[in-house]
Amino acid sequence: MDIQEGTLTSPQGYRAVGLSCGIKADSVKDIALIVSDRPASAAGVFTTNIVQAAPVHLNREHLANGTAQAIIVNSGNANACTGEKGMANARHEASLVAESLSIPPEDVLVNSTGVIGVQLPMETVESGIARVLDGLGDGWDDASEAIMTTDTVPKRASTTIEIDGKTVTIAGMAKGSGMIAPNMATMLCFVVTDAGVSPTDLKTSLTSAAQRSFNCVTVDGDMSTNDTILVLANDAAETGPLIGDGLDRFNVALEAVCVSLAKQVARDGEGATKLITIRVVGSPSEDAGRTVGLSVANSSLVKTAVFGRDPNWGRILCAMGYAGVDFNPDNVIVSMAGIPIFADGAGLEFDHDKAVEALGEKDITIDIDLRSGSAESIVYTCDLTYDYVRINAEYTT
Amino acid sequence: MDIQEGTLTSPQGYRAVGLSCGIKADSVKDIALIVSDRPASAAGVFTTNIVQAAPVHLNREHLANGTAQAIIVNSGNANACTGEKGMANARHEASLVAESLSIPPEDVLVNSTGVIGVQLPMETVESGIARVLDGLGDGWDDASEAIMTTDTVPKRASTTIEIDGKTVTIAGMAKGSGMIAPNMATMLCFVVTDAGVSPTDLKTSLTSAAQRSFNCVTVDGDMSTNDTILVLANDAAETGPLIGDGLDRFNVALEAVCVSLAKQVARDGEGATKLITIRVVGSPSEDAGRTVGLSVANSSLVKTAVFGRDPNWGRILCAMGYAGVDFNPDNVIVSMAGIPIFADGAGLEFDHDKAVEALGEKDITIDIDLRSGSAESIVYTCDLTYDYVRINAEYTT
Repeated sequence: MDIQEGTLTSPQGYRAVGLSCGIKADSVKDIALIVSDRPASAAGVFTTNIVQAAPVHLNREHLANGTAQAIIVNSGNANACTGEKGMANARHEASLVAESLSIPPEDVLVNSTGVIGVQLPMETVESGIARVLDGLGDGWDDASEAIMTTDTVPKRASTTIEIDGKTVTIAGMAKGSGMIAPNMATMLCFVVTDAGVSPTDLKTSLTSAAQRSFNCVTVDGDMSTNDTILVLANDAAETGPLIGDGLDRFNVALEAVCVSLAKQVARDGEGATKLITIRVVGSPSEDAGRTVGLSVANSSLVKTAVFGRDPNWGRILCAMGYAGVDFNPDNVIVSMAGIPIFADGAGLEFDHDKAVEALGEKDITIDIDLRSGSAESIVYTCDLTYDYVRINAEYTT
Repeated sequence: MDIQEGTLTSPQGYRAVGLSCGIKADSVKDIALIVSDRPASAAGVFTTNIVQAAPVHLNREHLANGTAQAIIVNSGNANACTGEKGMANARHEASLVAESLSIPPEDVLVNSTGVIGVQLPMETVESGIARVLDGLGDGWDDASEAIMTTDTVPKRASTTIEIDGKTVTIAGMAKGSGMIAPNMATMLCFVVTDAGVSPTDLKTSLTSAAQRSFNCVTVDGDMSTNDTILVLANDAAETGPLIGDGLDRFNVALEAVCVSLAKQVARDGEGATKLITIRVVGSPSEDAGRTVGLSVANSSLVKTAVFGRDPNWGRILCAMGYAGVDFNPDNVIVSMAGIPIFADGAGLEFDHDKAVEALGEKDITIDIDLRSGSAESIVYTCDLTYDYVRINAEYTT
């Protein structure tokens, strides 16, 4: 699968824009709009935190009919945990966008990310919505910058495949650095495609892709109140609703775009110096392997060890052991940066200097073979550094 | 309950000793022995990690008959994850102690903490065992120092109460700084009492006390492979097996000693500058409240916020929300350092400077009222600091 990162290829029948409207200081881009030129199948996956921001509640409502046409996003303010007024503000945003585009408000999906506990500055947002409506065009790069908070780089991925003789493009952007950053919230991801997919199939496709991408990423184990992944499929490529093999191929491509974005999020984790990929093979099920992988990925001791270039199998074994998955520690094989470090219930002899050197790379893989099945899972995280503490220990003022 | 911390009052009929035998460098104390002058009721609570060190397996075996008389401990080497040879070494330690004391090997409990993945230096351990057997006496302070690894202070607590006209003393020591420290493992706790308690009741008493003390403490969420709490009750106070009100009063005192030691462990967490006490009231059950409290206590974002003196209710609410306990976020009240910061689904107005000042104290309380029941729970943790990263990111070499 050829995945384009860095820049996006726009699918047919969509326009995008991103600009600064004044929610953030210093003319930093803070509002984005993505519009399909026709109603599109739409699906969403949201945080399972029981504390949920107003836009998440609204989007669930608006996705009930499986159709949407516009995604409006602001950064700089998360509209989170704010009760009725937050809901009213989110609804008002949808109305403004809908009115200008002459579409139903239910076809507008609303997203906010940034400071929590402060109401949206609605006058600023209103003038921003007026301006993004005027600016719609090929502004994918601007849009993916406008959704950033503590991100240090925009996250973009797209791919183009042939399905039944038609050229189909899938393009996505994401933001997220801490699962929730210093008074900022949210991992957001927006994917658009010109393929035709029924709303029901699209929901299934997205849920499966999310499970193998964003649900396999952890920066600090803190699940945000705003996490949102949205996908639109407008059939501008005239595939008609995909079925069978065509749908399968679409699903593979959608998952690949989501995995690319998820890895970009992990690599840009707060304070991170390294992307850590944890591959668990030989597990009884994909879920079991993912649980073991996430337990290792969430271990502060493993993450600091990778930061410190320490080939510390003890911390990895320990985190595997409390994952709640049954396996025999004496059968497990663990490698770090390609170097086998644990097998047969004991640490292996290895060249320590060589291991420290290998752990100096920016991409570190931890390979775990549970030797109790044939399923495979991959999860992504980053190292835990002084900068993570610095970023998150700074005063809110 | 009058709890003595810092020094221990020895219960009747026990001797203790701690000294340096050369497992650690620089003549740092590294071996300890506690002996009851008669067979005592004995109970243990151990890590639920499926990766367990050899001494944990051995102690389960030796506690099967509910009786023990000696506790041998070394620091500097955890005898962890080392298969059959680790088991053989632990058994050999028990035999050496048993032979010298003329007691059955099954009455000796063996504990190790320190570097993992390296076999015990048995010659050194053997000479150490010979020397501690000679040194038995009133060496409680030395013993509690000899079990330390990355701890910066020894943890000691004792209390004396009257039961049925008899004076009963309960004394305990603990070690632990990270749940597992840099290549070190283990939280260990040893409690001895001269009360009489049947083995069955003692197991129930200890399990309950552990649930409200050590199971309510987290430093970094990493559960060690060696965690062990042992209690001996030798009836030197001649209470006979306690029942009814006497047993209830013993249980309260045992829990208080364990809570004191658990708080001392949290306060001395790796890199910690603050003890954080999280009180959850108004929950549907004690377990539900503990789950919510531990979710907050394990949040890296909450722990860095406390380090940074940041009255950040958003991170607290967020961590509560993914605890897996059902509550209504709009009903919750949250205070930090005595200052109400969240109620009615929104942040409250408060004097930010005053809050930052209050968060400068060494003891920080987070009060959470779920307003959905009447149960209360308390958990303990510490802040997450640069020093935690430093301590855990250093090379193993």
